[in-house]
Parts: sequence; structure tokens; C-alpha cells
Amino acid sequence: MDTLYILINCDLGAETQIISELAKIPEIMEVRGTYGVYDIFVKVQAPTSGVLEEIVTNKIRRIPRVRSTVTLTPIMSQGGR
Amino acid sequence: MDTLYILINCDLGAETQIISELAKIPEIMEVRGTYGVYDIFVKVQAPTSGVLEEIVTNKIRRIPRVRSTVTLTPIMSQGGR
Amino acid sequence: MDTLYILINCDLGAETQIISELAKIPEIMEVRGTYGVYDIFVKVQAPTSGVLEEIVTNKIRRIPRVRSTVTLTPIMSQGGR
Amino acid sequence: MDTLYILINCDLGAETQIISELAKIPEIMEVRGTYGVYDIFVKVQAPTSGVLEEIVTNKIRRIPRVRSTVTLTPIMSQGGR
Amino acid sequence: MDTLYILINCDLGAETQIISELAKIPEIMEVRGTYGVYDIFVKVQAPTSGVLEEIVTNKIRRIPRVRSTVTLTPIMSQGGR
Amino acid sequence: MDTLYILINCDLGAETQIISELAKIPEIMEVRGTYGVYDIFVKVQAPTSGVLEEIVTNKIRRIPRVRSTVTLTPIMSQGGR
Amino acid sequence: MDTLYILINCDLGAETQIISELAKIPEIMEVRGTYGVYDIFVKVQAPTSGVLEEIVTNKIRRIPRVRSTVTLTPIMSQGGR
Amino acid sequence: MDTLYILINCDLGAETQIISELAKIPEIMEVRGTYGVYDIFVKVQAPTSGVLEEIVTNKIRRIPRVRSTVTLTPIMSQGGR
Repeated sequence: MDTLYILINCDLGAETQIISELAKIPEIMEVRGTYGVYDIFVKVQAPTSGVLEEIVTNKIRRIPRVRSTVTLTPIMSQGGR
Repeated sequence: MDTLYILINCDLGAETQIISELAKIPEIMEVRGTYGVYDIFVKVQAPTSGVLEEIVTNKIRRIPRVRSTVTLTPIMSQGGR
Repeated sequence: MDTLYILINCDLGAETQIISELAKIPEIMEVRGTYGVYDIFVKVQAPTSGVLEEIVTNKIRRIPRVRSTVTLTPIMSQGGR
Repeated sequence: MDTLYILINCDLGAETQIISELAKIPEIMEVRGTYGVYDIFVKVQAPTSGVLEEIVTNKIRRIPRVRSTVTLTPIMSQGGR
Repeated sequence: MDTLYILINCDLGAETQIISELAKIPEIMEVRGTYGVYDIFVKVQAPTSGVLEEIVTNKIRRIPRVRSTVTLTPIMSQGGR
Repeated sequence: MDTLYILINCDLGAETQIISELAKIPEIMEVRGTYGVYDIFVKVQAPTSGVLEEIVTNKIRRIPRVRSTVTLTPIMSQGGR
Repeated sequence: MDTLYILINCDLGAETQIISELAKIPEIMEVRGTYGVYDIFVKVQAPTSGVLEEIVTNKIRRIPRVRSTVTLTPIMSQGGR
Repeated sequence: MDTLYILINCDLGAETQIISELAKIPEIMEVRGTYGVYDIFVKVQAPTSGVLEEIVTNKIRRIPRVRSTVTLTPIMSQGGR
């Protein structure tokens, strides 16, 4: 499975609604509103990087009032869990 | 359980060693090296926010060659999973 | 009492009006327009972190023309005053 | 009285010691370690901007292991409290 | 004379028009569009910090399509020219 | 030939359309959507810095839904390829 | 072929030497010192993402005096050239 | 004449000494310590961009305890003064 961590900033006041939209996407393993410098944390998993690309480009980034995304790509060869 | 997401930047070349140190801390549920703007992603969980504080202040931030941390605190009342 | 420091960026020209809106929220101990990289500084205090969450999510972030917030959570066990 | 808000990043692991150094400076009204994107929050007050400059340049920024500071200057004419 | 350096980001495509608006404010000593991470550089000078505040709050930040400003306040006691 | 690297952030969901607009500009040697902290990478080349300026100011930055650009200017005297 | 764009910050004064080190890595298609917010631009290409990971983790990030890297991963399905 | 604006971050406590070093470079028209998110502001002017490159690479960036520089290149065709 391929994984991405995505840090979202959104229109303020829209967090709860966006989180509820994101929660409908089955490939999203984890989604939480956060304090700090990003508004929403997302972890998404899919069988291939092509499917991941499709989810980010056509689903997550098209949700209304999502303003910007910062994406972290795991480097599996560095270990961890 | 209380949760924090922590985004780490570290001395370059030290990622693998720091990830292996972090993997020894039992409260760390998830740790991965990442491409992007942060070097390592960490998810930490503990029974109380006091224990979380203790882990961040005295364990994670004291690992040699960890340079900076950005912390995201989940807002559970906004829903998500 | 639980405390948060919040650094706000807003639509330019709206500072004075937003500051006046924020000053109506009794839990906001301190609010000032600032030069620098953030437009408004806020210190908010409430008896529990649940009440703080509610104020940030439903009051501060819903004020029109507030664009983004960076939140700092105090770590009381590190001392200070 | 003139006021500055200062957001500090420091060598990790040095927070508690730096906070304790800062707490010795009488013009520092408030100092707390924080989660988020900055490590320490400081509020400093002095009778003139000249005295403030002196405290920032010669005291705060010379504390060992303080790495960077972001300073916010209040704009009193925008109101607030 | 008091001085401020202001780094502006604006709606793209509006640079030339905003620069021409800024050039009408007599207290603005220098204004240039820039490549890099900010779109426009401004140097403003006025006899008192109160007048400067007024220019920033009521003139510069109210120009349509100016989106954000980062302000640098000179510390004269550190020397320079 | 003069070169610039340009890092673009855009309205989310508009990436594919903007990339297709950029691909019509003959001076753009390379254009790709990217994960990470910027949405689109562009490499532009022109015979003089004046032509480059014209392309950035009047073409790239005027494409609808392009929100911000960070520009890197190569320093040829430092070598490389 | 898989591609990554890498934006490097380094110890100042070390740019020329680091660029010359990077130019020895055959998978690096393009490397230039830059003005702006990053010091060096790199484009790296390899037959698989595993080889790319290996080059970033074990070669680029281990060059002395490289301080931080921001990595952009192209999304080929969004088109471009 | 070609111009660059340079925003410097430095080792804290070294501002006054670095400013005094910079003031010795005749091409530097303006240099001031600043509050905000950068520590020192510099304006440099030279007859050609080649000379500017040389001053930035071999003089400014080699001053001990200068840590990072952000460079803004004026776009003269956008007007201003």
C-alpha cells in the first residue's frame, strides 16, 4: 500500500464540513481538525501511487473551501512503523 | 487517549538513526521519514495531555540531531476518524 | 484555566473591525493589531480545553474576514509565568 | 508603556532552561513554552521603545541556545485590550 | 524620521496597478515589484511612528488587491546606514 | 539564454487547466504539477531578462486561478549544469 | 523515469562547493545556485522511485553543509511537459 | 545600476557586528537591523548583475554568522521609484 500524509488549510469556519466530506472517502484512514499551523490532518492509503494521485487531484483538492495542501510522501526505506 | 501529530526537521543524513530512536518510544504509534517540507512524521498517543507533554519535552525533543518540531493538536469536537 | 495564543491573518483593511469583534468575546484576555508577519495577536483563556475548542472553532474562526490562524498551546510543565 | 510579543525558536531540549533565564528579566510580563510552530512565547513591556530595543538586542537574543525570534509590534491605534 | 520596510503579496496581475497607487503616497520613499517570495517592496518614512501606523493601516493595507504584508521595523541602535 | 525557476500555488482543482495553459507558452521549457508545498513547477527560458520579466508579469501571473509565485533566479557564476 | 525537484538550503559560502559535489552525481540532470528563498535547485531522475529514494537519502542529504531540503514530487497524470 | 534587496537571518547576538561588516561594503546602500521575521535588511547596488552576483556570493554570504538570505530582485518594468 502507498501512503501520503496531507496537511490542509481551509476557509475558516468550514473545518467541520470539510472533515465530514473527507470522512466519506474510503481511502482516507485518518482525518482530524488540528490546532497549530495547519487546519486539518489527513492520512490516505491506496494500492498504487496512481490511485493516490487520482484521489488527491480529483477528490481531496476539489472539495469546496479547501485552500491549500502540503503533502508528505513517506520514504519507506528509512524504516519506522 | 490524547494524540499529537509532530512534524520534525533534523540534521540531514541523521533521519534513519532518529527514526530508529523514535521507534523505541512505545507511545509513538507511527513514525516515517518523508519527502516534502518536513523530514519525519510522528504520531504519538498517551492517556493524558500531561504524559504527552512529558514525552515531547523530555524524549522526542532531546534526541540528538532533531532540529525543530511543529506540533498539531487534534480538535476532537470537529469530528473525523 | 487553559490558555491559547492565537496569531491571526485577516483581509487587509479589516483589522480594526475584527479586533472590535474579538474584544466582545469575554474569554479573550488580550487582543492587539500587530506589525510583523501576523496581523492580530489574541490570548484566550477558558476553564477547560473543551470550552477553548468551542471558542476557537465556533467564535474566532467564524468572524468574517479572518483568513488564517496559527495556534500556540502553552506547555505549563516547562515553567514560566 | 511599549509592548512587544516575541516568538522564539530554540535548540531543542533547552526550552526549560531558556524559559527560566527569561523569567529573570523583570520586563518580561509573560513567558511560556508552547506547542505549535514556535517553542517559546514572550511578552515584554518597557517604558520606551529604546529600552525595549535594548532588552531584545542585549538580553533576549543573547541567551545561549535561542536560535531565532519573530517579533510582533502592537499597533495601539487599531484598538483592542 | 521613523522608517518601515514592508513586503507585500498581492493578487497576481495587479502588481503594476498597486505599485502605481503606492507611488502616489508621498511618505513612500521606494516601491518596486520584485521576483522572489514577495511581490512588492516598499520603504515608508514619516516623522512619527503614529503617522507611520496611520499610513500602513489606512492607506497601504486598504489598497484593493493587496493581500498580505510583512513589516520590518528598523532597530536604529544596532547601527548601519 | 536567461532562466527562471517558478514555484506556483493555485486554486485547488485548477492545476490541470493551469498546466495546460502554461504548456502553450513556448518559453516554458518544463511544467509539472507537484506534491509538496508548491502545486506547479515551471522552468522558463528567454534570450534576455527583459523578455523573461515580460513573460512572468504579463503571461504567467495573469493566468486565472494562479494565486502566488516564488521565483528562483539562477546564479550562473556558481557553476552547475 | 521517475523525477524529483529538490530545493536546498545550505551553509552560506558553501554553495559553489556543494554544487560541484552534486554535479558529480550522474542522476542529477540539473543543478544551479539560485537567488530567492532557496540556495540551490536540483532536478534528479532515476529509473525507479526506490533508486531516487536511495540517491536523496544516501547521497544528496549526506553532502556536508547541506542544511535542509524541500522536495517536490511530479504528478504526471496532471499533464505538462 | 542593478539592485537587490536582501533579507538576512543571523546568529542571534551577532547583529551589530554583522551590520558593521556589511557597512564596509561600498555597494551596500542601506543596511539596518530589523524586528520582525528577518534580522537584517540590506539594499545592494552595482553596475551589472555579474558584479551583484559576486558581492552576494563572495562577500555578503561569507560573513561569519550570517545564516540565511532571502533575495528580492526588482522588476523595473513594473514601474515604481
